[in-house]
Amino acid sequence: MNNAVEKANVLIEALPYIRKFYGKTVVIKYGGHAMINDELKQAVIKDVILMKLIGINPVIVHGGGPKITDMLKRLNIPSQFVGGCRVTDPATMEIVEMVLVGKINKEIVALINRHGGKAVGLSGKDANLIQAVRKMGKSIDNEGKELLQDIGFVGDVEKINPEIIQTVINEGYIPVVAPVGVGAEGESYNINADYVAGEIAIALKADKLILLTDVEGIFEDYNNKDTLISELKLNQVNEKITSGVISGGMIPKVECCVRAVEGGVTTTHILDGRIPHSILLEIFTDRGIGTMVVR
Amino acid sequence: MNNAVEKANVLIEALPYIRKFYGKTVVIKYGGHAMINDELKQAVIKDVILMKLIGINPVIVHGGGPKITDMLKRLNIPSQFVGGCRVTDPATMEIVEMVLVGKINKEIVALINRHGGKAVGLSGKDANLIQAVRKMGKSIDNEGKELLQDIGFVGDVEKINPEIIQTVINEGYIPVVAPVGVGAEGESYNINADYVAGEIAIALKADKLILLTDVEGIFEDYNNKDTLISELKLNQVNEKITSGVISGGMIPKVECCVRAVEGGVTTTHILDGRIPHSILLEIFTDRGIGTMVVR
Amino acid sequence: MNNAVEKANVLIEALPYIRKFYGKTVVIKYGGHAMINDELKQAVIKDVILMKLIGINPVIVHGGGPKITDMLKRLNIPSQFVGGCRVTDPATMEIVEMVLVGKINKEIVALINRHGGKAVGLSGKDANLIQAVRKMGKSIDNEGKELLQDIGFVGDVEKINPEIIQTVINEGYIPVVAPVGVGAEGESYNINADYVAGEIAIALKADKLILLTDVEGIFEDYNNKDTLISELKLNQVNEKITSGVISGGMIPKVECCVRAVEGGVTTTHILDGRIPHSILLEIFTDRGIGTMVVR
Amino acid sequence: MNNAVEKANVLIEALPYIRKFYGKTVVIKYGGHAMINDELKQAVIKDVILMKLIGINPVIVHGGGPKITDMLKRLNIPSQFVGGCRVTDPATMEIVEMVLVGKINKEIVALINRHGGKAVGLSGKDANLIQAVRKMGKSIDNEGKELLQDIGFVGDVEKINPEIIQTVINEGYIPVVAPVGVGAEGESYNINADYVAGEIAIALKADKLILLTDVEGIFEDYNNKDTLISELKLNQVNEKITSGVISGGMIPKVECCVRAVEGGVTTTHILDGRIPHSILLEIFTDRGIGTMVVR
Amino acid sequence: MNNAVEKANVLIEALPYIRKFYGKTVVIKYGGHAMINDELKQAVIKDVILMKLIGINPVIVHGGGPKITDMLKRLNIPSQFVGGCRVTDPATMEIVEMVLVGKINKEIVALINRHGGKAVGLSGKDANLIQAVRKMGKSIDNEGKELLQDIGFVGDVEKINPEIIQTVINEGYIPVVAPVGVGAEGESYNINADYVAGEIAIALKADKLILLTDVEGIFEDYNNKDTLISELKLNQVNEKITSGVISGGMIPKVECCVRAVEGGVTTTHILDGRIPHSILLEIFTDRGIGTMVVR
Amino acid sequence: MNNAVEKANVLIEALPYIRKFYGKTVVIKYGGHAMINDELKQAVIKDVILMKLIGINPVIVHGGGPKITDMLKRLNIPSQFVGGCRVTDPATMEIVEMVLVGKINKEIVALINRHGGKAVGLSGKDANLIQAVRKMGKSIDNEGKELLQDIGFVGDVEKINPEIIQTVINEGYIPVVAPVGVGAEGESYNINADYVAGEIAIALKADKLILLTDVEGIFEDYNNKDTLISELKLNQVNEKITSGVISGGMIPKVECCVRAVEGGVTTTHILDGRIPHSILLEIFTDRGIGTMVVR
Repeated sequence: MNNAVEKANVLIEALPYIRKFYGKTVVIKYGGHAMINDELKQAVIKDVILMKLIGINPVIVHGGGPKITDMLKRLNIPSQFVGGCRVTDPATMEIVEMVLVGKINKEIVALINRHGGKAVGLSGKDANLIQAVRKMGKSIDNEGKELLQDIGFVGDVEKINPEIIQTVINEGYIPVVAPVGVGAEGESYNINADYVAGEIAIALKADKLILLTDVEGIFEDYNNKDTLISELKLNQVNEKITSGVISGGMIPKVECCVRAVEGGVTTTHILDGRIPHSILLEIFTDRGIGTMVVR
Repeated sequence: MNNAVEKANVLIEALPYIRKFYGKTVVIKYGGHAMINDELKQAVIKDVILMKLIGINPVIVHGGGPKITDMLKRLNIPSQFVGGCRVTDPATMEIVEMVLVGKINKEIVALINRHGGKAVGLSGKDANLIQAVRKMGKSIDNEGKELLQDIGFVGDVEKINPEIIQTVINEGYIPVVAPVGVGAEGESYNINADYVAGEIAIALKADKLILLTDVEGIFEDYNNKDTLISELKLNQVNEKITSGVISGGMIPKVECCVRAVEGGVTTTHILDGRIPHSILLEIFTDRGIGTMVVR
Repeated sequence: MNNAVEKANVLIEALPYIRKFYGKTVVIKYGGHAMINDELKQAVIKDVILMKLIGINPVIVHGGGPKITDMLKRLNIPSQFVGGCRVTDPATMEIVEMVLVGKINKEIVALINRHGGKAVGLSGKDANLIQAVRKMGKSIDNEGKELLQDIGFVGDVEKINPEIIQTVINEGYIPVVAPVGVGAEGESYNINADYVAGEIAIALKADKLILLTDVEGIFEDYNNKDTLISELKLNQVNEKITSGVISGGMIPKVECCVRAVEGGVTTTHILDGRIPHSILLEIFTDRGIGTMVVR
Repeated sequence: MNNAVEKANVLIEALPYIRKFYGKTVVIKYGGHAMINDELKQAVIKDVILMKLIGINPVIVHGGGPKITDMLKRLNIPSQFVGGCRVTDPATMEIVEMVLVGKINKEIVALINRHGGKAVGLSGKDANLIQAVRKMGKSIDNEGKELLQDIGFVGDVEKINPEIIQTVINEGYIPVVAPVGVGAEGESYNINADYVAGEIAIALKADKLILLTDVEGIFEDYNNKDTLISELKLNQVNEKITSGVISGGMIPKVECCVRAVEGGVTTTHILDGRIPHSILLEIFTDRGIGTMVVR
Repeated sequence: MNNAVEKANVLIEALPYIRKFYGKTVVIKYGGHAMINDELKQAVIKDVILMKLIGINPVIVHGGGPKITDMLKRLNIPSQFVGGCRVTDPATMEIVEMVLVGKINKEIVALINRHGGKAVGLSGKDANLIQAVRKMGKSIDNEGKELLQDIGFVGDVEKINPEIIQTVINEGYIPVVAPVGVGAEGESYNINADYVAGEIAIALKADKLILLTDVEGIFEDYNNKDTLISELKLNQVNEKITSGVISGGMIPKVECCVRAVEGGVTTTHILDGRIPHSILLEIFTDRGIGTMVVR
Repeated sequence: MNNAVEKANVLIEALPYIRKFYGKTVVIKYGGHAMINDELKQAVIKDVILMKLIGINPVIVHGGGPKITDMLKRLNIPSQFVGGCRVTDPATMEIVEMVLVGKINKEIVALINRHGGKAVGLSGKDANLIQAVRKMGKSIDNEGKELLQDIGFVGDVEKINPEIIQTVINEGYIPVVAPVGVGAEGESYNINADYVAGEIAIALKADKLILLTDVEGIFEDYNNKDTLISELKLNQVNEKITSGVISGGMIPKVECCVRAVEGGVTTTHILDGRIPHSILLEIFTDRGIGTMVVR
């Protein structure tokens, strides 16, 4: 009985958070370990279903992960990267789209449905959700100069048409979006999922953007786990990049958050997807976890 | 962090119950210690607000308790009881109504509102919610014969007009009902709150009726706490009354449940209101607590 | 038959007024003799029901009258007044609320329902209808200086949340409001009913505010009944107060009207509630009755 | 003032009738003197506007009267009658339709609008409101045998499509219908207005059908005005026809009522349109006037 | 089969035009030969029904044509014209209204309904659709001075109340409007149909105004059919009138278009109604036909 | 101009068909040559967009075609067939789903969107659209006996949940469905597209089911093109199969039609997808094309 009372207390403690986020939209970039490890996968799916049930509107944007690379290997299509972007020739794009839309997206949808949620998968082509234009790759030459380079069907978001997401939300479904854009001629584009998540959050006037990553957050001193930066204000970002506190792959993630905040998203979060239920922890505890980027 | 993860797990465990009761109506008879003790009071109010937030529609019917007796004493109006019912002459009825509608009801409403819920109080006169007729008192004379006796403005429910409750629910409010009925001439009637809760549950086609009491439930052997009857089927009730397992003040409560089940309410519960969050425990645990009366 | 034709003519004459007020909201402060005398009471109730039936939305705000004083006397709670306001200690407030909400409000509701209307009673606590703050009493000391003085739970309106009134109107009910406000801690406040009626009229963007009083209106010369001031413009009010034409208890009533007009209410009326059907007479005749305060 | 109070009383007396007919549909056949005399005309128009304003849905079906005959005369088109029906050759039908739809209908519409109502005129061609088939004339030959005879474009109602009337009512307008039917080839038919009113009342599931006539009602003894038959039950009709109490032009009117009652109209009335406000008198007095035919 | 494939191609070619005009309102002044010749009549009616079916909202305003003159002649009512307007004394107006509203309007309505459309006829009196004021006639005296002259019930549009048209459109009907206006006293006015069509187009915020005429359009050189002016901009109109390119009866038609464009109608067209399906040709071909007046 | 008039005539001829199918649902199985040849592809897409624009609700269910086999070959996954069904081990199913959902479905969606339609792609996993169970393969052994055999993830439709299709239609989109089913454990099933189209037609209460094939229809004598069977009634089907008129791959297609008709679909069609615009020809011509199976 004591145990039961404790449980009731936990539910009661959730009350202010439930009230706070009721009817709000939360866009979650889902990727990394949380998409590979079975236990983490189930935890994310359950978090999302719980959110939906208590009146929050979660929107999932997923990445691709190792499955794309696996399939390219099986087909002997070589992979080349420029400035962190996969050079995407037509043969590669075909496989990227098939894996993202035909495999990963559908697995997530089926997993949510099997756990009692109601999910609908969407690609950027559906209802022209993600209109894209070609993006140039950037590399640094021997003399340290930035070079622009054609990297094929890698896209920038030109416009988000969020009506289909809103329709799907209003009918009680959880939208699951594959980050494939569509060009003016109907051609497909491979787009960074963090970036897509941010743009969709802006277009939906979302309250929250959550990027699930494989790091614990941003630290003043990466070797000292006590120096986690819980909250980063927009005007602090440049200094942290200059000083090297934010570096490498974290830079585009932070830039994604900055852009979302400037576009009207209230709070953005870089969370450690390796912690089970990190999404719930962020939403249902006062301190939250990971690093939050806000105005 | 461990603690946070545990909390997340509790929320996740609540998932199937949240789903199960989503959009369902639960009528709660609120009375006894849970209406006197401050800590219990707050626990009940928070339980009710949580239910509303996660999509359940709670309806509160409250009793009167010691405040009526106090006020009658202060005014030197003598109280007399026949068969468990207070003999209610016009002077008594005036006080009963003022205390129920003008004091207790408003205290509950204000408490819910102060904790972030949105409550609206209703008397049985509002929108003719509870149409009542005079009820005769029953006493046993010296020879053991049942006597019918005029006990004044004590009422039986003639008809529930639940539209105003539905309106209030639909607009997002928690209805709080005082068990005062109205007769054909506009006169007031004092009605047993358990009974009113049951009738309202039937009229609303509620999923659940919960009677908060000051006992732990029904026991095969009242002296042995291991003999709690968790579930009582309709066809077992008569035998349990005959054998004395159900006796005294528990009989009308069980009859109330029986009538509600026969009227279409799925499950009815006699809960120990002295346990904090007993309502949540009933809803969010598999075994539930107290005694459940079902078809 | 002649009589019948005359009746038909009266109905036909009402045509332009019915058209004029169709769909408009009229807030009526109900108090004084019209709440005591049985015949007047019935006339008011019938007027209100007729208004509702022909498409006007009446809202009743009632006062307390002698019943509060009676009950305080029965309980030996002494009454003290400062500047026309009852000093309201907790014991007094408890009784004031019980009588207003639990007795007077419910009698009006039952009376309307019994005559075929559909009324719902509301206290300022329901849905936080009347948010209040403590108001200081003003008295004049021997030297004619104004003194501020704590007079207990006497309130000023901080904010009206009119949604619940609108809900109740939209569902076809007549709202009946008791002038009890609720403070930040859930505590009750006794507020002047004229004042509450005015604030509610503003919040509802009402077309008309009617204050039922026990005087015939405002007269240039109080001793000469031919000098009734039918219409008083905002810019005339100060001069009339200075000159003593408006004096005593009439001053706060006129100030109430002034505030309502400044808040957007089209016309405000100080009517003699001792004339049967004075509300209908105001609405359905060209000249109206009593004194009207307009922009 | 006394006069004003009396007026208020008349309005209050109307209360139960307003409540009784709220939201009900009343189909009125408008014809005879009430369509010729200016004062009567205005009285009918005002009655209809009042009904609309207080929540009743009046539908007017008008006849043709002397204007058709006048126009035919001016054009030297001879008129011939068979069994009370005008023989309607194409040249006649053209004029009948022009006068009914282009003159009388529009005069009624303009009169209602000018008095503050909102009317929309409809012919049976609009939205195929009145689908008609050719009707044969009946005459009696010298030997008393009934002869069927082609009388041209005189129609029977085949089907009423009441959607356009309902649309017009729902938008707040008073529909005014000219009794011109339309055949399968788009040809026009002249149809008896009483009969059209009855069919429309059935199709609209109206509560009341009122036929304005130029007689006082049906009398047991036509010479004794004290023998008015206020109420005629369906099962009494045949006997009254056989005995000659109902005779001549009254027979088709009564048959119209009988058919409407059998088709679901609650009450049907044959009123004297020569009494000003006879419609209001019927609706707002207990005894009503004229003869009522009911189940 | 080849033929069938060609037909399919025609339908496919219509695709962009269907998309372009979907949900748009098109007001058509219907008159001239297209209202007399049976084949042209059917073509117009079918064009209008097709428009409605594929999602365009056509509104027809019809003229009077020779039928008015015929009827006036049959009744020996002499016709006199001042500055192109028929002098309209009361006797004339009565006939004009009867023919327009009771004959021509109903023929169009019946024709549409018979071909499977759903039409509702409206006069300017219905729901006060066309509020009118008296217009003075203009004539030129011997010395070339303009004279103003009373020409009776000839009207100018004072105000269009388009709600009834919108209602009728929303319910799926095609509105057919007779150009009869109503004055403040309910009197009827004869108004030029081109002019009414333009005013209704403005009031409905129509996308297109089409005037069906009996000329091929406006030509730079009337004798050279190769000089058709396909598009006329507002700022070219004055010069074309001064130079005589636009002259005679074409001037008021062009002024009608100018006024409509200035009032917000996107495009206005003067079409040759003698070409079958000229309306469809305008809408479903790139070049359109006739002369278009635009901003 | 003549040409233009002819075009107008074609549009007008389409009128009755537009009216007939307005608001109706048409399910189209899209496959075969029509999905390979570029010109045919565009014709189908334009037909579908036209249908949507003129008020028909098309639903596309597509097959897989050679792209699946191509991809399996590229990955060296051997293909084996039993009774016309591809034996679908997990490795095969993974590729089948990726190609159907991630490639073909998205190509169709992008093509529709690029031509101005609004399409949304759906897999049977989205919103649990196609619930499936494992289906056994049937083969014939040497002795001519039917053998049941496990053929892996080949599915039968257990239940269609059409809500998501209805949502998508109501919001103005064209749903494009990939025939992948989902099992109780979230596993994927390969299902015959004709069969899925039929089941969806039944679940949507569609008016028409169209199977696009690579044959001209069913012939009494396959060598005589004059013997096309335009209409096949349910009760003729068995005889035609027995007699060999319907044979081979045509049998399951006809059975699909039979089942759809029995399930409430009004008409079903086996069309030659190699004729451009065969869908439009079927809908917009009297005789239709191909073979129709009806009750």
